Amino acid sequence: MDVISVIRTKRDKGELSPEQIDWVIDAYTRGEVADEQMSALAMAILLNGMNRVEIARWTAAMINSGERMNFAQLSRPTADKHSTGGVGDKITLPLAPIVAACGAAVPQLSGRGLGHTGGTLDKLESIPGWRALLSNEEMFGVLESTGAVICAAGDGLAPADKKLYALRDVTGTVEAIPLIASSIMSKKIAEGTGSLVLDVKVGSGAFMKNIEDARELAATMVGLGTDHGVRTVALLTDMSTPLGLTAGNALEVRESVEVLAGGGPQDVVDLTLALAREMLDAAGLKDADPVKALADGSAMDVWRRMVAAQGGDPDAALPVAREQHVVHASESGVLTTLDAYAVGVAAWRLGAGRARKEDRVQAGAGIELHAKPGDRITAGQRLMTLHTDTPEKFEYALEALNGGVLTAPEGTEFTPNPIVLGRIA
Amino acid sequence: MDVISVIRTKRDKGELSPEQIDWVIDAYTRGEVADEQMSALAMAILLNGMNRVEIARWTAAMINSGERMNFAQLSRPTADKHSTGGVGDKITLPLAPIVAACGAAVPQLSGRGLGHTGGTLDKLESIPGWRALLSNEEMFGVLESTGAVICAAGDGLAPADKKLYALRDVTGTVEAIPLIASSIMSKKIAEGTGSLVLDVKVGSGAFMKNIEDARELAATMVGLGTDHGVRTVALLTDMSTPLGLTAGNALEVRESVEVLAGGGPQDVVDLTLALAREMLDAAGLKDADPVKALADGSAMDVWRRMVAAQGGDPDAALPVAREQHVVHASESGVLTTLDAYAVGVAAWRLGAGRARKEDRVQAGAGIELHAKPGDRITAGQRLMTLHTDTPEKFEYALEALNGGVLTAPEGTEFTPNPIVLGRIA
Repeated sequence: MDVISVIRTKRDKGELSPEQIDWVIDAYTRGEVADEQMSALAMAILLNGMNRVEIARWTAAMINSGERMNFAQLSRPTADKHSTGGVGDKITLPLAPIVAACGAAVPQLSGRGLGHTGGTLDKLESIPGWRALLSNEEMFGVLESTGAVICAAGDGLAPADKKLYALRDVTGTVEAIPLIASSIMSKKIAEGTGSLVLDVKVGSGAFMKNIEDARELAATMVGLGTDHGVRTVALLTDMSTPLGLTAGNALEVRESVEVLAGGGPQDVVDLTLALAREMLDAAGLKDADPVKALADGSAMDVWRRMVAAQGGDPDAALPVAREQHVVHASESGVLTTLDAYAVGVAAWRLGAGRARKEDRVQAGAGIELHAKPGDRITAGQRLMTLHTDTPEKFEYALEALNGGVLTAPEGTEFTPNPIVLGRIA
Repeated sequence: MDVISVIRTKRDKGELSPEQIDWVIDAYTRGEVADEQMSALAMAILLNGMNRVEIARWTAAMINSGERMNFAQLSRPTADKHSTGGVGDKITLPLAPIVAACGAAVPQLSGRGLGHTGGTLDKLESIPGWRALLSNEEMFGVLESTGAVICAAGDGLAPADKKLYALRDVTGTVEAIPLIASSIMSKKIAEGTGSLVLDVKVGSGAFMKNIEDARELAATMVGLGTDHGVRTVALLTDMSTPLGLTAGNALEVRESVEVLAGGGPQDVVDLTLALAREMLDAAGLKDADPVKALADGSAMDVWRRMVAAQGGDPDAALPVAREQHVVHASESGVLTTLDAYAVGVAAWRLGAGRARKEDRVQAGAGIELHAKPGDRITAGQRLMTLHTDTPEKFEYALEALNGGVLTAPEGTEFTPNPIVLGRIA
C-alpha cells in the first residue's frame, strides 16, 4: 500500500477501498504518512467527496486508532448530546443536569472553543475552582454519584481524529461534510454512549450555512451512529442569531443557572427541553418529565452537586469583566437581524474566545443582548452590552458588528425562525 | 495575508490575486507556509485549475525566489531545449552538439530521471570520467569553448520550484498543467536563455496521455515564455512507443553517438533534426544547416570536445550490463504496439532508473529493441534484449511488458504515428 496511490484514487474521483482507508488512517496515526500527504488527501476528499461506505469505514478506522470507553457497568442508561457549535450555545450546561435528574447517565466529554464559537469547558472554567481535567476513575465517580459529568475528553480516544482535526484546522480543509461527520462520530462512538442526540446548527453562526448542508451532515452522522449500534437522532436548529441573551463564558453560565432556576430566555428553555426529550427517549426513559425536573429543583440539585464534585463552588460569584460598553439602537422599528456570526466574532474579539489553541480566554468577556430578532425597539434604547478586560478591543469588536444588526420600519410583519428546524432519525 | 484564506480562495474556485501568489510562494520558500499547507493548495490547484494570469504570476514568483543567469556576454545566440520526458528520449545528446556546430550556444541544464522516464545526466554519467556538476565558471567555460554544455542546474535557480517539485512528488499533485508549466518555465526563464524549444511528449510513456492535454500544456508554456521575452516554440511529439531502439543509460549514449556518426534509428534522426531546425530558427540562425553539421562531422567534433571538457573520455568503452535476456516474438504478423510506458517501467525495474532520489542507477541496464511498430515480424525472431546487473529482476521487468507488445495478423494495414504531431508558437 502506498500513500500516493491512495491520494490519486480520491483525486481522480474514485472510491477508496476499505484496505486503503484502514491503512492510511493507521499509517498517518503512526507518522508513516506525513502531514503534507494527509492534507493533500483531505483537500481531495473535500473537493471530490466520499460515499456512505467510505465515510463509515473512515470513521471506524479513526475509532480503531485508540481506546474505547464502556459505560455498560453504570446503573443507568447513558445519553449523550453533541452540538456542532454555535454562538451563545450554552445548552449543555442546563441540559446535562435536567436529563440526569430524569434518570439517565450523561457523560459529556466536551471541548474548548476555537474561532467564533464558544467551548463548554471554557464556560464552566469561569466557575471558581472548577476542573475540566478528570482521570477516568474520577469521571466515572462523578457520573455515578451525580448522574452527569462534563469534562475534557482523554487523549486515548480516536487519536487519529485529534491529529487530523489539528491538521485540517491549518490547511483549509475543515468544511468537508465527510470529514466533519467522521470526526464528531468517531469521538462519540469511542466514548461508548448508548444513545446520542445531535444538535446540528444551521445559519450564519454555524459551520453549516444552509439547511441542505446541515441536513446532509445530520443524515450522515445519524447513519454512522446507527451503523455502530448507537441510537442516534439529530435536530436541525437555528443559528442565524445567538442562542439566548448572552455570548461569553461567565455570562453564559449565569444564564444557564437562570434556566435551571426556572427562568431564562425562552429559546434556551425551548431548545434545552426539546433536546432533553430526545435524549430521554433515545435512552429508553420515555416517561421522564424534564419540565418537572426543572420545576421541582431536582435539575438544579444535580447541577450544584456536579459542579461541586469537580471542585467548583456553585455559590461563588462569577467573574465580571472590568469594562462595559453599551450599544444603543440608532432607529426605531422591528429588529429583524442580529447576526450570530457577527456577535460571535465580536465576543471572540472582546476576549471570550481564542485564536490559537494556546491562548487563554477571559472569563468575564462577551456580549449581553437586550433585544432579539422580532422585538420592537425604540431609537436610543440599549441593544447590547459589550464586556471585556481589554477595553482597547471595543472598537475592533464593534467593527465585527457592522452590518450584523438590521431593523425594519415599525409595523413590518416579521416572524423570527423557530428554534427547531427539522429532525432526522 | 494568511495561508488559510489563500487555500480557501482556490478551494472555493476563486482566482488567486497577484498579492496572494507572491506572498504564498515567498512564504513557502522561507518556511513560513508549511508543507502540509502548500500540498493542500497544490491539490486545490490541481482540481480547480488556475487561469493564464494566475499561472503567469505563479511562474514569475518562482523565478523571483532565486537568482537569474545571464548569457548576454556570450559571443553566440543561446538556444535551449526542454523535453517533458519520455522513454528512450536521448535527443539532447546528439541535438546539443548539432545546434552548437551550427553556431548557437546551447546551455542544457538538465535533470536526473525519476520513475519510468530517464534523465539526461544519468545517461551521460555512463561515460567514464564525465562530471555533471560544474561551477558557474566551468559551465561558461565549456559553453564558450565548445558551444554546448550539458550539466546539472545549480541550487540557486528557482528554489521555490525545487521545494514545490519535491513536495508534489510525494503528495499526488504532479499531474496539474498549471504546476507542470510553471515548474518547467520558471527554471528555463531563470536560466536566462534567449530562445527555447519545448518538446512536449504525448502518449502512454509521457505525463500527457492525450493530445488535448499536451496542447494545453504546450500553449501554456509558450505563453509564459513569450510573456517573459523568451522566443518559445513547442513541438508535440509522439511518446506512444520508445524513441529509437534503446532505453537505458549507456545504451542510449551508444545510440546517440551512432546518430552523430551519421547513422542511428530514423525516428531519433528525424526528431533531432526537427528540434535542431526550430532551435536554430528561434536563435535567429535561419541559414544554418543541421544536416550538414551531421554529414561533415562537425557535430561529432563538438560532442567529443564537450564530453572531454567535462572529464569524460569520448573513446572509452561504455559499460555493459552483466546479464542479458532475449524476448522472442510468439507469433508472426505486424507489430502494432510496443508500449512506451511498459518499456519504460521494465527498463526502470532492470536498474536503468531510480525509485527514490537517493537511489543509484545501473549504467548498463535497460532495453534494446529489435523491432518497432509497423515492422513485419516472424514468430521466434528476437523482439528485444533486456540488460541488467541484477538478473533476479528479469521476471519483474517482464511482468511490466505484459500486454505492452501487440501484433496484428500478417497483411494488416498499419501506419505508425508520425514523430511530430503538432507545433505551437
